[in-house]
Amino acid sequence: MRILGIDPGSTAMGWGVVDVEGKTPAHVAHGVLRPPRAAALSTRLAFLYAELVEVIAAHAPETAVVEKVFVATNPHSALVLGQARGCALAALGAANLEVAEVAAREIKQAVVGSGAAEKRQVQAMVARLLHLDAPPPSDAADALAAALCIAHQGPLAQLGVAVGARRRSRRQSGWRRNA
Amino acid sequence: MRILGIDPGSTAMGWGVVDVEGKTPAHVAHGVLRPPRAAALSTRLAFLYAELVEVIAAHAPETAVVEKVFVATNPHSALVLGQARGCALAALGAANLEVAEVAAREIKQAVVGSGAAEKRQVQAMVARLLHLDAPPPSDAADALAAALCIAHQGPLAQLGVAVGARRRSRRQSGWRRNA
Repeated sequence: MRILGIDPGSTAMGWGVVDVEGKTPAHVAHGVLRPPRAAALSTRLAFLYAELVEVIAAHAPETAVVEKVFVATNPHSALVLGQARGCALAALGAANLEVAEVAAREIKQAVVGSGAAEKRQVQAMVARLLHLDAPPPSDAADALAAALCIAHQGPLAQLGVAVGARRRSRRQSGWRRNA
Repeated sequence: MRILGIDPGSTAMGWGVVDVEGKTPAHVAHGVLRPPRAAALSTRLAFLYAELVEVIAAHAPETAVVEKVFVATNPHSALVLGQARGCALAALGAANLEVAEVAAREIKQAVVGSGAAEKRQVQAMVARLLHLDAPPPSDAADALAAALCIAHQGPLAQLGVAVGARRRSRRQSGWRRNA
């Protein structure tokens, strides 16, 4: 099972690809897409879409996960983030990938063990879980963490169980303590 | 000068194409894109992107205008709208189209003569200005109105003058009274 995680953002969009067999995740690739800052909004969004299409073509993921947005932000930020997120989702949809949405808090909880974990903790834990030589850039680490979060669900994810339902089964299987 | 206007929305995205020579606008085509409601979000957004790419290929506009979002809405609505808007902007950017952004209020003011005009008034006025047999659907009417709003700028738009700057020159040339 190959999973593409995405941390959507308008100035930096992190992505990470993880392979998982049984309970062992393996790092495939990661990166951060940075649209040219001086370009028009439409050009920047077209850049994000095109680059994601290339990432999908290069790594052929079987499923995807995108960070869910915490909506209690201000409307302007929500609009700007929504625009970048829409491009990412459209690129995933065009590739017929199923897309899970997981809250940042849930991702941190799964990977670090605390929903309030700091960026550095996520970077360090992702590097450790995936046996990387150095912590990946923060945006890519968040994307890899999202992919790991789904990877840990293993068989449940393959059955297409909703993320909300997974939360309960996680506690039952106790995998969080082993993470 | 061929102008593509877009009224972005997640459940219905209006589009309209207008030709303008001098001060006379001519209707080319319009429509409303409605993604399948039952489909996943990523599939719906991919639908909007793909359909817009087709509209652009079919009508070869030279410039585009997208309704600016009134940000004082709630964050969740802003996110949902942003996602659809991002897809539209990415499709326009991929076609290397310059994109003007005009506020709904400004569009209504230009086409109907009142920033607080009702949907029916916009539909009726668009039909009248473009010599249509019947008023277009509301979303398409808004898109055509956006295109007309830019069409009326004529030579200024071709010079690439910013929308904000156009507001002043409009009053000077008095075109609004002639609309």
